[in-house]
Amino acid sequence: MMQIKEQITERHTLAVTVANEPGVLARIAGMFSARGYNIESLTVADISDQHRISRITIVTNGTPHVIEQIVAQLDRMVPVFSVTDLTLGAHFERELALIKLMIAPGAHDRALALAEDSHAQVIDTAAHSFIFEVTATSEKIDAFVAAAERLGRVEVARTGIVAIARDQ
Amino acid sequence: MMQIKEQITERHTLAVTVANEPGVLARIAGMFSARGYNIESLTVADISDQHRISRITIVTNGTPHVIEQIVAQLDRMVPVFSVTDLTLGAHFERELALIKLMIAPGAHDRALALAEDSHAQVIDTAAHSFIFEVTATSEKIDAFVAAAERLGRVEVARTGIVAIARDQ
Repeated sequence: MMQIKEQITERHTLAVTVANEPGVLARIAGMFSARGYNIESLTVADISDQHRISRITIVTNGTPHVIEQIVAQLDRMVPVFSVTDLTLGAHFERELALIKLMIAPGAHDRALALAEDSHAQVIDTAAHSFIFEVTATSEKIDAFVAAAERLGRVEVARTGIVAIARDQ
Repeated sequence: MMQIKEQITERHTLAVTVANEPGVLARIAGMFSARGYNIESLTVADISDQHRISRITIVTNGTPHVIEQIVAQLDRMVPVFSVTDLTLGAHFERELALIKLMIAPGAHDRALALAEDSHAQVIDTAAHSFIFEVTATSEKIDAFVAAAERLGRVEVARTGIVAIARDQ
């Protein structure tokens, strides 16, 4: 029974702090690629100008054994200060999407109703298009994009997931 | 005069669509690293489950000549479908940050006032901490983080910039 459970693929969200130096992202992405680990989404941004530290949020998937390997591999990379598997504890995940909708004829009011229902902000309005800003869970953004696609052609720019632990 | 102007370093935001296949991110990050191009922020996320396409938003900087080289290099990589330098036209940039504030004694009400002034959402409240969600321009997020740091210790997880062109 344990054997079967170990084979189940799980989705994990990792927070990795690294020295902000040239080539760090290439090395981390290269490690995932070389070992065949999957990257579902990745965001990287400086968190401190003064200390030159970046925080990378990586969403990956694999069996529990693979996730352990990924964490261990990251942990032993030189520019990595810390690796936290946020999925092991209470945490919040959010994503930001900018969605341009080229409104199909007659769909204008339904597009505005969708935005209101989904707590999307309308950040630009043109004659035949809207640009929406949506901050939500990835599932809610998926649902918003699917609903928008029924109202016209869409262009989507998503950040991928960013996450933070609930406890200190 | 032209010579001088050409030396000015500019910040550019590139939207890159790529085939969602293993190793794409490693190759792109590796190209930047090998050639000494800077990555200020990078986000990557699937934009279509059906067509296996990812969109990467890269904020980089360099002289106009270097930016041209970066675009040309990206454009000739095999899994890259398109490269758009959004900085050349009207576009919107946004970023999402999750900010945990361990509230200093006596700073509770000021923290809530800061959140209201900055249109930050309070997504978690504990005895001595808040977690805020802020979607804004990077400059506004910088300002929010700086203000929060005066009210206690902060932990910041940012997505980096995501961007979309205004015109179709």
